[in-house]
Amino acid sequence: MADHRPKVLIIGAGFGGLECARALKNAPVAVTVLDRHNHHTFQPLLYQVATAAISPADIAWPVRSILRRQENAEVLMCSIKSIDTKARIVHASRHDLPYDYLVLATGVTHSYFGHDEWQEAAPGLKSLTDATKIRSRVLISFERAETAETDADRKRLLTFIVVGGGPTGVEMAGAIAEIARHALRYDFRHIDPSSARILLIEGGPRILPTFPEDLSAYAQRALEKMGVEVMTSSMVTDVRRDGVSLGDKKIESEAIIWAAGVVAGPAANWIDAAHDRAGRIKVGKDLSVPGHLEIFAVGDIAALDPPVPGIAPAAKQMGKYVGRLIAARVEGRPFDKPFRYRHAGDLATIGRKAAVVNLPYLKLKGFIGWLFWSLAHIYFLIGVRNRLMVALTWLWSYFTYQRGARLITRDEPRN
Amino acid sequence: MADHRPKVLIIGAGFGGLECARALKNAPVAVTVLDRHNHHTFQPLLYQVATAAISPADIAWPVRSILRRQENAEVLMCSIKSIDTKARIVHASRHDLPYDYLVLATGVTHSYFGHDEWQEAAPGLKSLTDATKIRSRVLISFERAETAETDADRKRLLTFIVVGGGPTGVEMAGAIAEIARHALRYDFRHIDPSSARILLIEGGPRILPTFPEDLSAYAQRALEKMGVEVMTSSMVTDVRRDGVSLGDKKIESEAIIWAAGVVAGPAANWIDAAHDRAGRIKVGKDLSVPGHLEIFAVGDIAALDPPVPGIAPAAKQMGKYVGRLIAARVEGRPFDKPFRYRHAGDLATIGRKAAVVNLPYLKLKGFIGWLFWSLAHIYFLIGVRNRLMVALTWLWSYFTYQRGARLITRDEPRN
Repeated sequence: MADHRPKVLIIGAGFGGLECARALKNAPVAVTVLDRHNHHTFQPLLYQVATAAISPADIAWPVRSILRRQENAEVLMCSIKSIDTKARIVHASRHDLPYDYLVLATGVTHSYFGHDEWQEAAPGLKSLTDATKIRSRVLISFERAETAETDADRKRLLTFIVVGGGPTGVEMAGAIAEIARHALRYDFRHIDPSSARILLIEGGPRILPTFPEDLSAYAQRALEKMGVEVMTSSMVTDVRRDGVSLGDKKIESEAIIWAAGVVAGPAANWIDAAHDRAGRIKVGKDLSVPGHLEIFAVGDIAALDPPVPGIAPAAKQMGKYVGRLIAARVEGRPFDKPFRYRHAGDLATIGRKAAVVNLPYLKLKGFIGWLFWSLAHIYFLIGVRNRLMVALTWLWSYFTYQRGARLITRDEPRN
Repeated sequence: MADHRPKVLIIGAGFGGLECARALKNAPVAVTVLDRHNHHTFQPLLYQVATAAISPADIAWPVRSILRRQENAEVLMCSIKSIDTKARIVHASRHDLPYDYLVLATGVTHSYFGHDEWQEAAPGLKSLTDATKIRSRVLISFERAETAETDADRKRLLTFIVVGGGPTGVEMAGAIAEIARHALRYDFRHIDPSSARILLIEGGPRILPTFPEDLSAYAQRALEKMGVEVMTSSMVTDVRRDGVSLGDKKIESEAIIWAAGVVAGPAANWIDAAHDRAGRIKVGKDLSVPGHLEIFAVGDIAALDPPVPGIAPAAKQMGKYVGRLIAARVEGRPFDKPFRYRHAGDLATIGRKAAVVNLPYLKLKGFIGWLFWSLAHIYFLIGVRNRLMVALTWLWSYFTYQRGARLITRDEPRN
């Protein structure tokens, strides 16, 4: 029996793609969500996997499981080869998939500003694989420092560099400081982990540039109190496996983490669309791609005018908007209001009990900020089990300073 | 200030090695535990990581953290190049480590009975890396079956083969059956996961050969009730990436798991010691290596006469014995009782609520057996946090049939 429902293909099972699928729940369409991975990743907490606080399974959930009760949706794990926008067919790794509506929600990855060769030395943080790789680098640095034969080696191995002072960079630097000062404190015999040097390097004049100045200043003070050296107005000019350069200045380190910039994947090229310098697809007021009423871009891959921040709530709002638009169009209902982004606020946490929260009518910092941040993140985690596990893990590490997931499981060279 | 305490090197942070280190806690010695990994793995529950029930961090714990309060012990993450038994030096990846006492506790790995080429097609289950690899294979088979284009492909992709009917094989087969029958039940649109064929292939006349016959028979009935086909007296004669052969009979599958035999690592060769066919080092009544009063082998790597089963309690008993012996010798106390193994019993679980338990004065099966099995494993898990997390995860999946850790995180080819 042929399926005559209009076909909606959604590429990417991040916040935008999933929210779009959900908004189509009651529409007379056949939804297919495509993703390279079998799981949705809760990216706001990836840094906690990278810093050994929680396990990958606590912040990731199988896409199939999320959509199991939505009968008009199916899930396909595949990669995209090309898209034929004339014939309206997506050529995926093993299948050719026709569509009536196409939603691009492929997100962004790290940008090395034209220096892709830096990637090997300074991994970014966008996937679970990235997170476990960074975790291994950080933990192996301590392991190797324990047996270092010269002071220079030991110093290099106990230097940790985070490039980029946005929320991810701030969270990473704070978490590494906690590992060094608390979690590993009694584990070694020949080094003192709390003597580790943790650098947060930001090119602009202040960290957390999207926050008000007083919260930026508070975050910097909080980090410094934890022992993080914050370097602002400092441009990284070279990155190697054994350190970074800031102009003439060289800093040796074997654990460098990149949190400095993002770039869109190849989605704009798939459909030959106009894009900005970061590869984001320029979209109209209804998030459709100019010249293609049936193709939409949502989340970080979409370039709006005025711009919208690259955060989960923005991606969700876009996904929901496009889902509703497609549902209306399929059902022949009018739907002509443009997409309007409502900014709910910014959050960033700095270690175990400090955070900065900037909502329209509410600014919080310190412990109360941290509580708010924790509750917000637990609330948005998908699935009862994940919420419970993350809450318990946080409680546990709050009271004990322990980090449960301190496993080196990647096959990194270590000899 | 030079350290004049006798140096005890323990190679391997499994059950035997760690128990030996602990038994030396109050002895006037300097203990160093060497391991390739930074974590101790609770191997009895590895199959639960492989079958997506729990996360790697729930059953592994950093070795440093386990020994952090034992002041006379340190931990080194390294691999072994060679051992000079005359000069009493272990040549490790970056260091030369002199010893006064050497304890080999390196365990065993899977044996393919001379067919090492089978390893790629049929991974075994001895490490966290193995476990995540098997998990990916199993889950990817379902993913690919969902989009298979022919019935033959679909049938092959929905066939799961476990080779070896010992406790690990029984536990794996039971867990895969539960995934197919329950956890994935509503996740797919084009296949019915519960139609998956799960085969448990055993060369001998019955599964669980170390258990009494009635418990073997019960386990087989329980597995069959869950939909596992149990094939006894069946020898696998070939293993390929797309299936196995049993003599003339071929069975197609892309998810084959090896649980059929074990072989010791190269430890016997390091010290040029007499060993049995599986590479286990022949030891004397005091677990020392003949000709070397200062070298001991404990756990699975030791070949005793009469033989001792390759299970965690046996390794722990040996580790403790050798630790006490070394402590006595260093302190000049007499210690001449030989090692005596006390068999506490055998446990194996078959899915969500059946297990077989065979203790000297107690045989259990069914739900009561499962409760006993659960409590015993939670009791022996290292660390309060791990016990709590595993207990909660089991409770959760007991009531919901869900499996939280269904992530495909290995970079396996899938197209």
